[in-house]
Amino acid sequence: ARSVLDIKGIYPPITTPFTKHQEVDYNQLEENLQRYSSIPFRGIVVQGSTGEYAYLTKEERLEVVRRARKVVPKDKLLIAGSGCESTQATIQMTEEMSLSGADAVLVVTPSYYRGRMTSHALIHHYTKVADSSPVPVILYSVPGNTGLDLPIDAIVTLSQHPNIIGIKDSGGDVTRIGLTIHKTKQHGFQVLCGSAGFLLAGYSVGTVGGVCALGNVLGTQLCALEKMCLNAQWEDAKQLQHRLIEPNAAVTQKFGVPGVKQAMEWFGYHGGLCRSPLPPLTDPEVKELRRDFIANGWLLPESK
Amino acid sequence: ARSVLDIKGIYPPITTPFTKHQEVDYNQLEENLQRYSSIPFRGIVVQGSTGEYAYLTKEERLEVVRRARKVVPKDKLLIAGSGCESTQATIQMTEEMSLSGADAVLVVTPSYYRGRMTSHALIHHYTKVADSSPVPVILYSVPGNTGLDLPIDAIVTLSQHPNIIGIKDSGGDVTRIGLTIHKTKQHGFQVLCGSAGFLLAGYSVGTVGGVCALGNVLGTQLCALEKMCLNAQWEDAKQLQHRLIEPNAAVTQKFGVPGVKQAMEWFGYHGGLCRSPLPPLTDPEVKELRRDFIANGWLLPESK
Amino acid sequence: ARSVLDIKGIYPPITTPFTKHQEVDYNQLEENLQRYSSIPFRGIVVQGSTGEYAYLTKEERLEVVRRARKVVPKDKLLIAGSGCESTQATIQMTEEMSLSGADAVLVVTPSYYRGRMTSHALIHHYTKVADSSPVPVILYSVPGNTGLDLPIDAIVTLSQHPNIIGIKDSGGDVTRIGLTIHKTKQHGFQVLCGSAGFLLAGYSVGTVGGVCALGNVLGTQLCALEKMCLNAQWEDAKQLQHRLIEPNAAVTQKFGVPGVKQAMEWFGYHGGLCRSPLPPLTDPEVKELRRDFIANGWLLPESK
Amino acid sequence: ARSVLDIKGIYPPITTPFTKHQEVDYNQLEENLQRYSSIPFRGIVVQGSTGEYAYLTKEERLEVVRRARKVVPKDKLLIAGSGCESTQATIQMTEEMSLSGADAVLVVTPSYYRGRMTSHALIHHYTKVADSSPVPVILYSVPGNTGLDLPIDAIVTLSQHPNIIGIKDSGGDVTRIGLTIHKTKQHGFQVLCGSAGFLLAGYSVGTVGGVCALGNVLGTQLCALEKMCLNAQWEDAKQLQHRLIEPNAAVTQKFGVPGVKQAMEWFGYHGGLCRSPLPPLTDPEVKELRRDFIANGWLLPESK
Repeated sequence: ARSVLDIKGIYPPITTPFTKHQEVDYNQLEENLQRYSSIPFRGIVVQGSTGEYAYLTKEERLEVVRRARKVVPKDKLLIAGSGCESTQATIQMTEEMSLSGADAVLVVTPSYYRGRMTSHALIHHYTKVADSSPVPVILYSVPGNTGLDLPIDAIVTLSQHPNIIGIKDSGGDVTRIGLTIHKTKQHGFQVLCGSAGFLLAGYSVGTVGGVCALGNVLGTQLCALEKMCLNAQWEDAKQLQHRLIEPNAAVTQKFGVPGVKQAMEWFGYHGGLCRSPLPPLTDPEVKELRRDFIANGWLLPESK
Repeated sequence: ARSVLDIKGIYPPITTPFTKHQEVDYNQLEENLQRYSSIPFRGIVVQGSTGEYAYLTKEERLEVVRRARKVVPKDKLLIAGSGCESTQATIQMTEEMSLSGADAVLVVTPSYYRGRMTSHALIHHYTKVADSSPVPVILYSVPGNTGLDLPIDAIVTLSQHPNIIGIKDSGGDVTRIGLTIHKTKQHGFQVLCGSAGFLLAGYSVGTVGGVCALGNVLGTQLCALEKMCLNAQWEDAKQLQHRLIEPNAAVTQKFGVPGVKQAMEWFGYHGGLCRSPLPPLTDPEVKELRRDFIANGWLLPESK
Repeated sequence: ARSVLDIKGIYPPITTPFTKHQEVDYNQLEENLQRYSSIPFRGIVVQGSTGEYAYLTKEERLEVVRRARKVVPKDKLLIAGSGCESTQATIQMTEEMSLSGADAVLVVTPSYYRGRMTSHALIHHYTKVADSSPVPVILYSVPGNTGLDLPIDAIVTLSQHPNIIGIKDSGGDVTRIGLTIHKTKQHGFQVLCGSAGFLLAGYSVGTVGGVCALGNVLGTQLCALEKMCLNAQWEDAKQLQHRLIEPNAAVTQKFGVPGVKQAMEWFGYHGGLCRSPLPPLTDPEVKELRRDFIANGWLLPESK
Repeated sequence: ARSVLDIKGIYPPITTPFTKHQEVDYNQLEENLQRYSSIPFRGIVVQGSTGEYAYLTKEERLEVVRRARKVVPKDKLLIAGSGCESTQATIQMTEEMSLSGADAVLVVTPSYYRGRMTSHALIHHYTKVADSSPVPVILYSVPGNTGLDLPIDAIVTLSQHPNIIGIKDSGGDVTRIGLTIHKTKQHGFQVLCGSAGFLLAGYSVGTVGGVCALGNVLGTQLCALEKMCLNAQWEDAKQLQHRLIEPNAAVTQKFGVPGVKQAMEWFGYHGGLCRSPLPPLTDPEVKELRRDFIANGWLLPESK
């Protein structure tokens, strides 16, 4: 019987801090990771969409993995986003990230030619990557960024590959997630929620955890929600989930990575600016972001 | 203290049977309703989208309500879809349906001029309708048909109206549903799932029931799922929910009302054809529909 | 050889004026039509989307046709929008509008069940309507309102029906329009632009006219543009077309029917309010609308 | 007075041939370019979307520019796509492509974080790139690939930058194109059509040329169409334009780059396969592609 890496749990897809000259600030990166080590995360994801991977050079992408590996303890998983547009670049990046210390890779759907990214094309792409990858592969569907939903029939086919162990689904369609689980369960395929907004709903239909941008800010609370779900404390879970939806929306659809980084500052992490062209939040946006945390009890109202 | 009509539970949005000359077949309608009376539904919805209300004349819409009222016992709710494009037509239809026996009305978002259907416009529309309605009003957001999602801020405002008691949300975005519940809970606002595909996930975040096209076919099973959710049998609920997603998708997005009606025939109800221009299923579509029920154990495989 | 009604030219899809009690104001309707009689339009369209047909009762729709027929001279065409969601309602409305004086009917795509409105379904619908219609039928594709583009293969098939003489295409995709003309030219099929924003581009690929909301306001100018196109004064046409795009966008996508009606007031027509739920423009919207006319030289700047 | 590079004319955005081991085949690239030299193109575009730039390494992108420069005569323009997701990578690529021989660069909108790519962000991005670029910059909006339309207000602002001389607009919305020209004309801004489907319509509203994937296959015909437009032979232009729509759609939306490459083979160029994950056409797709050329008289029907 095949033994599959267990990826159950909560992960922050960490941000990439930059210096004022827009260079990667590896020291701040390590300090953030050290602070996260006290939270019962299952592991760390580097270079999900929240990590601005699209703005990093190949060398930076690998160096981030190496630095993270130095800090992330061995009993936590280090999952690295290795997706590129071409299959051969993805294969190469996967191999090098594995050599740099990643325990598994997260491979986003290639999407520039989305009109031709049929199930057939995507199955071929992921199969080639998984065939050659030294570490397990996790699929990654994030239609908000890619404009492309990995089709369920492709997921079902790919779930049978021995080196493809799960998917991060950021689309938020819990009906689709339920069906994915239903159709892949005999292969021990593991589904992770790609956002904290539907974490409880995800657990109700069988997801095993989440890779959530909000974990960069409210990681302890997401781990608490996970525990409630696992312990069947559904009423508590519901109350907590409700209070997380607006902050989560604020750091994803509404304000994106600049929102995550701004909120991190308030909670004692290194946030800072994004690389250009991702602009910093405007003052009204910062206020609205803050309101979304205050209104749900995660920050105190400003005294006047 | 205001006493609000309790709408918790499962409802089939019944189909409208037609004779071979495309006239409403009220006898078949009554016979279907009699058969549904043995299922523990909370009530019956007439003239949701599944009822082809868009294809009925005003007189037919009212007569369907009258006939249903004759058959639906007093301890079950009769909810009638009274939405029209204009506010004044909706007001009038609401009043007449109420006089015809409806316990509450379900009011779809007007949508032909969707580019101008701002929160402001929709709040005004629903407030006028609710002000004059003799019975409680339930909002109805069904973006798959209308291309319009009732905005959450409009829902929050409308939830404070004493005669607006809930919403049927057919969009399937459980994050949005959770936030709706979070932001309206102090007003006792009741949220119903508009599709069986996310019924369990809906319960996990606080919905109180569902108006589900699949209820026309597998009503007993939907009521069983409701009971599991209310009794916190989450593992059983998950297994059952998984088996309902494909049949539900088949009778909604994939094959629509013609799919519901075809499946009803297999389960002993009067289905029949839709009014033109809704075409009957093709033979390959019928086969695929059947496969979706067979694959999930709801019909036996054909013997060869 | 079949003789086909020639529909070449420009038409305003007229608005429906209402009294302060939201009743149709037939007198104002007639006065607007009288004013339009001095503009070299080919005819008048009643109950396009601009006519708020979706908000009128059946009786009002017919009465509008009758009143228009009284005022519109015989040498101008009266085209009436007769589309309803069901085939049988459309057939009946078509017949009654014909009896009420319409020279041709404009039939919008049924769209509430748009997921099932396949080419097959739409061909069947239009064929039935055209078979029974006493007057020629013009197809009407307006995806901005219906969320549905009439597929080109359906148009090609329908163009062969002897009683279907053309299409009003409001989608604005001039590539699609060019292909439609290319594939239907042997049947003498006539394509009208459904918006003034691409009138010149339409003529360049072979359209024969336009049914343009902006014609309610700047009808003389649209007829001038038509003449330039027919006389191959392409440079003049380009200059004029450029100045019409912003005002046109303002009275279509941006501000819709309330925008048309507001602008009509400035040009000496009866505009007034729309029926609820279409809200009046806010003050900032009125200012922006006015700016779009001023900036292109159609209104004088306000003196301070 | 500022003297602006004149980019009027037709350009093929050339494909990148690969060897059977998926390495760039520079010899085939040069041979294709030599064949194109007999067509009255204004110049050549390398690494538009048709060039699979998203699948090339940085080194390959530069080498393609160098090789093209060797072959493209000095009197023809060599325009190179230098867009990357981050501003700093785009600046660097622009500089290096300029050093490698590009006469101008074409800069696609960054799009991975499209939810945050506001006008403000895009204006900042392009301004930084144009400030530092040694050669003129051409904007590139291709929503089919990026899911993002460069907003008109951003274009108007950017048109005032002395080093931004035009845009390639592949969206196909000729109303938008007309408005762009209207609002930028005082700055001598030059608009190129990004597809052959609306080339004539584009000329009618003031575009000055086109960068058209179909130019790889039917370059002579596109140049003939250009000449007809410049000579005001509108009737001939219309006939020719009509015959180009279907072949153009086949090598863009329908079959994409694999379609261009397949059709190139039939017309004597090196086409070949795309890099993975772009799959080759299936046999039925090849047949349909061929039909689209045959039906419009560009290839002879197969003899039986």
